Amino acid sequence: MKIAIDAMGGDHAPRAQTQAVLQAAAEWPDTQFILVGRTDAIQPHLQGNLPSNVTIEEAPEVIEADDEPVRAVRRKTSSSMVTAGRMVKEGTADAMISAGNTGALMATGLLVVGRLPGIERPGLAPMLPTIDNAGVLALDLGANMDAKPEHLLQYALMGSLYRQKTHGIEKPRVGLLNVGTEAAKGNELTKQTFELLENAPIHFVGNVESRDVLDGVCDVLVCDGFSGNVMLKAIEGAAGVLFKVLKQELTADWKSKLAAAMLKPSFRRVKQKLDYNEYNGAPLLGLNGLVVKGHGSSDVKAMVTAIRQTRTSLSGGLIEAIKGEFSGK
Amino acid sequence: MKIAIDAMGGDHAPRAQTQAVLQAAAEWPDTQFILVGRTDAIQPHLQGNLPSNVTIEEAPEVIEADDEPVRAVRRKTSSSMVTAGRMVKEGTADAMISAGNTGALMATGLLVVGRLPGIERPGLAPMLPTIDNAGVLALDLGANMDAKPEHLLQYALMGSLYRQKTHGIEKPRVGLLNVGTEAAKGNELTKQTFELLENAPIHFVGNVESRDVLDGVCDVLVCDGFSGNVMLKAIEGAAGVLFKVLKQELTADWKSKLAAAMLKPSFRRVKQKLDYNEYNGAPLLGLNGLVVKGHGSSDVKAMVTAIRQTRTSLSGGLIEAIKGEFSGK
Repeated sequence: MKIAIDAMGGDHAPRAQTQAVLQAAAEWPDTQFILVGRTDAIQPHLQGNLPSNVTIEEAPEVIEADDEPVRAVRRKTSSSMVTAGRMVKEGTADAMISAGNTGALMATGLLVVGRLPGIERPGLAPMLPTIDNAGVLALDLGANMDAKPEHLLQYALMGSLYRQKTHGIEKPRVGLLNVGTEAAKGNELTKQTFELLENAPIHFVGNVESRDVLDGVCDVLVCDGFSGNVMLKAIEGAAGVLFKVLKQELTADWKSKLAAAMLKPSFRRVKQKLDYNEYNGAPLLGLNGLVVKGHGSSDVKAMVTAIRQTRTSLSGGLIEAIKGEFSGK
Repeated sequence: MKIAIDAMGGDHAPRAQTQAVLQAAAEWPDTQFILVGRTDAIQPHLQGNLPSNVTIEEAPEVIEADDEPVRAVRRKTSSSMVTAGRMVKEGTADAMISAGNTGALMATGLLVVGRLPGIERPGLAPMLPTIDNAGVLALDLGANMDAKPEHLLQYALMGSLYRQKTHGIEKPRVGLLNVGTEAAKGNELTKQTFELLENAPIHFVGNVESRDVLDGVCDVLVCDGFSGNVMLKAIEGAAGVLFKVLKQELTADWKSKLAAAMLKPSFRRVKQKLDYNEYNGAPLLGLNGLVVKGHGSSDVKAMVTAIRQTRTSLSGGLIEAIKGEFSGK
């Protein structure tokens, strides 16, 4: 099993990426890791240590966070991200992971790795934390802004397979993001999608409102990229504001400060429970190979998590299963 | 000024509605209040007290929370909601407020009160709390599921007028809900709407991500009913889960319990800060009269808030201003 890691993408690259690979290489000696990026930038973080299952693939260019995605992928053909994509395409790597520019990674997926036959629009599928700690795979959260019912059906099928192959859930519950739970609710897109999902070979549990998603009412949440992204950022924003207001209140006077100090471990656990990094590594499903997006702010631990998920998807035979599902359709 | 209150709509009807009208009647003696509903159900909550500026309009039928909206409005023509709508239509009331079935109230607005000439789709426009306490008017949050760019332009114009006339903001900042702040971001709807808003006679501040909405980056947030509703419920859900997890943690052991008890007033203030009821009363903008939706769970205080907002909108000349904006267009 060979995993290419874009060493240059992310807020803490290449340090976090390199150190994560060193950890992963020790934990999984059966796996080959390829650090893709500028050798001179990676080298210092290896501290003279290059395990036998780690190699460096020199890639002199870097796609920056504010680069225009499609143009960057077309022009920076020797960037770490595009090089890693090419390795997946050519089979010299089984999967790639990048914490870099999300748009550019989606463009790399489409233009370099390529779509699976039968898939119209790949979808970005991160795990969101739920109160029962089981998490929910939500897709698409930003790759496909103008989705059609057929795209959402494909997301439902691919998301189901992902939860089966990566997390061992036998019959993943698939929900459709909507503004009400009744079948007739929603816009034209969700009404038409509802019908398709009812007749699909999945365990469809119906419409799910965004307020219930974190309660863990489904294992796969299907949505169009626009409203999915709005939901994700609304959750992040609400949590952020709540912590901000709490902080203001809890530092208002000495009594609050004292009590807050006593509760520090509790607050840390609450934050951890809702920490997206716990589930780092969102697959871009529908590509002819496994491409995984790490959170831009990924630290070493988060990158190791992304590597762990990627390994599990690969050994579960995820891409082959999706290929099988869509071949001849 | 005459305000009709649907006495039978809402979780605490008719008690909360009746008691709120008694309070409002004492606070604003210049305003006439009409309690619309079943006299025998309202009477007990008056406790023999019928101020000179309160009358009861008998309406024997009630639209229930689970009634199918359009059918209920068509069939239950002597329900409290439809009767109140008819009073606005006929001019025997200047405004109506209901905390009942949202869909039915929208149907009452469309079928009984009627649209303003020039307005294609009325929008539901609640205020959301922001961290700076100023609040943001978001529309549409659920009336119009398949919005077109022209609808969103009309929401921007009406929302601006609402913030001017009801809240005295001279140049309300109008933002467009989107998945990124750059002009080219989003789906077809937001891309086309962006162009319209740039050329509209409003103070357009560009795209706004859902994660920044609660930070108070705009006074009016324009969105389609579907993604707006997804955003609203995602915020509610995230806040709910966070409080739930906090509660679990803070009752885990005696030390946490003690500290949490010390912080009770702080937690109460945090909840209050994010309390939607503080802004109760969402206008349905674009109708030929003022129709205001109260939260289904409205208590007495929340209903008084809705009445206060409605009074301010009326005395600010909101409906006339919107009529003026759209006449001859």
